Amino acid sequence: MVNVALNRVTATKGRTSPGTGSGSLQCLSAGTEPLTRDGGSRESAAAHLIHAPAVCSSPLLPVNMSVSGMKKQLHKASQLLNERLMGAEGTKMDEDFVKMEKSVAAIQSLLLELLSKSTQLLQPNPAYRAKLSMLNTVSRIRGQGKPQTGYPQTEAMLGECMLHYGQELGAASEFGGALGDVGEALLQVSQARDALDVNTKRIFIDPLQDLCNTELKDIRYQLKKVSGRRLDFDYKRRRRGKIPVEEVKQAWDKFTLSRELAERSMFVLLQNDVDQLSHLSALVTALLAFHRNAHRILLGLHCNLQARRGVTSVTIQTWQPRLLLQQQAGPGSALLQSGVLLPPKPRG
Amino acid sequence: MVNVALNRVTATKGRTSPGTGSGSLQCLSAGTEPLTRDGGSRESAAAHLIHAPAVCSSPLLPVNMSVSGMKKQLHKASQLLNERLMGAEGTKMDEDFVKMEKSVAAIQSLLLELLSKSTQLLQPNPAYRAKLSMLNTVSRIRGQGKPQTGYPQTEAMLGECMLHYGQELGAASEFGGALGDVGEALLQVSQARDALDVNTKRIFIDPLQDLCNTELKDIRYQLKKVSGRRLDFDYKRRRRGKIPVEEVKQAWDKFTLSRELAERSMFVLLQNDVDQLSHLSALVTALLAFHRNAHRILLGLHCNLQARRGVTSVTIQTWQPRLLLQQQAGPGSALLQSGVLLPPKPRG
Repeated sequence: MVNVALNRVTATKGRTSPGTGSGSLQCLSAGTEPLTRDGGSRESAAAHLIHAPAVCSSPLLPVNMSVSGMKKQLHKASQLLNERLMGAEGTKMDEDFVKMEKSVAAIQSLLLELLSKSTQLLQPNPAYRAKLSMLNTVSRIRGQGKPQTGYPQTEAMLGECMLHYGQELGAASEFGGALGDVGEALLQVSQARDALDVNTKRIFIDPLQDLCNTELKDIRYQLKKVSGRRLDFDYKRRRRGKIPVEEVKQAWDKFTLSRELAERSMFVLLQNDVDQLSHLSALVTALLAFHRNAHRILLGLHCNLQARRGVTSVTIQTWQPRLLLQQQAGPGSALLQSGVLLPPKPRG
Repeated sequence: MVNVALNRVTATKGRTSPGTGSGSLQCLSAGTEPLTRDGGSRESAAAHLIHAPAVCSSPLLPVNMSVSGMKKQLHKASQLLNERLMGAEGTKMDEDFVKMEKSVAAIQSLLLELLSKSTQLLQPNPAYRAKLSMLNTVSRIRGQGKPQTGYPQTEAMLGECMLHYGQELGAASEFGGALGDVGEALLQVSQARDALDVNTKRIFIDPLQDLCNTELKDIRYQLKKVSGRRLDFDYKRRRRGKIPVEEVKQAWDKFTLSRELAERSMFVLLQNDVDQLSHLSALVTALLAFHRNAHRILLGLHCNLQARRGVTSVTIQTWQPRLLLQQQAGPGSALLQSGVLLPPKPRG
């Protein structure tokens, strides 16, 4: 057991619970606060710092509430180090528990990836996505409702461009008319994609996010608790002679209770396969609906375009060169006075 | 005609044709090159600069080839300035020509936008697009064929993630199995999207790019020519007394010829509505095929998932708390020796 005291402290630093952490913070602030308030000399600051440990260990301060907790943390750290460094064997979880733990870990990373990848599927351009999320945040801060602009769908951008140039080319041009038709259809497809976006968020992304934030978070907390209580029990069992049997039994009961709770939560999560399956199925249904709608819209458009192509191929004209006509009429300076290309009149 | 000489020079600077531009560049480099080669004093540099104009105007240098061209440019610039600043009226194009010119300009900007927006539709993430284009360039430089990796479709990324975690959760879990199914289907959808990508490039993007690079480029060149010859003719007509009639007639003939050529090219382009229409129609067909395929794939998947959900809701188990069983068997330290949670043996 070389350097155990040092090791214990290091381990405790890394593993202090929020309670003890805030305790020591409080301790520090109690020591340093007067320094800023006084704005005084270095000596008074030093005096405060010297007094600080005494203040911390005073039985009147609330920080002492966590001394027993700190002790427990030290015990756990000692047990952990014993296991990690000296190869001591702790109480082993049964196979089912380990298996469940693995499955839960897999589900957790799966959910995180699913959330990010399905968002990418719906909103593939990261720049637009970031902009939209920023707009959402701004309007939430301002207390407004949802912002008017949604994610800019590529179909909508292409469609609007086509509509614009369709109008510019005019209805007389078959190409212009066709552009207008395709543009309209693409706008409809983009609306279908917007609907997919909204639906998927509602029936897939939000529920999975909830699962991450509630059930999985609870399980993570419970598993942490189990591991802490297991270390505490093993520490006490190791020192069975020095610690009363009743205390060891109490540690064992606490450990089994938290293990039971974690096991139940994991079991429930894993049994809720059918819930996750229904979310997955909802995603597929939404995708299916989008592709069905897009297919329907484009099918109508396709028939329109075929009809237009038939018309266009009938009404094709041939080029009649004007030069030949003009040359037949008489070349040279006479043309300058022709109606087609009048020379400019002198300005008034 | 105030400051005409100065104006002419300024205008010529802005409007020099590539030929005369390179001529004057040559002129400058002839004068300045020795400066860097010598690495010499300021005096020698000044001497070179003083000699430079003489070198440029030497009848032996090829730059003199473009003196007549330069003169023509000056005439055109003078005419242009006269029209712009003094309000002189030049020969007007007829209405049809102007209309065609406008339509062609509209088609040109339409094509540029269509190309960029349809690329965005197919490959919406600019970062991936840039990376892919870089890989393509690198493999072209190295003389290899097409790179193995295509654009990373979001469906493929989501599908692969699902397949991975489906395997991790194992076939025993209905959710894992379903994830595998959905992953497989999404990979198929991503293949359909790859096919859409390749098809659209072949039948829509490449032909439109070709149109921009050949026909539209020619028309742009011809229109520039028309405008130049129109200025030349108008300049000569303005100075009819000083310039022989024959020369004016020649300028007129040149102008009408180039106008005729430009008009013919524009007419052909605008008459080829049916070509552009067929490209547009091909794009719609490709999109339609993609959505049809995606719909077909997802429909099969949807039926599978429904079947799975039926199975899962039948085989649901209930939680049997182990703690209660253990407490019935006998609580306390006796549990330490139970088969489930054996205390570790001392290490040999």
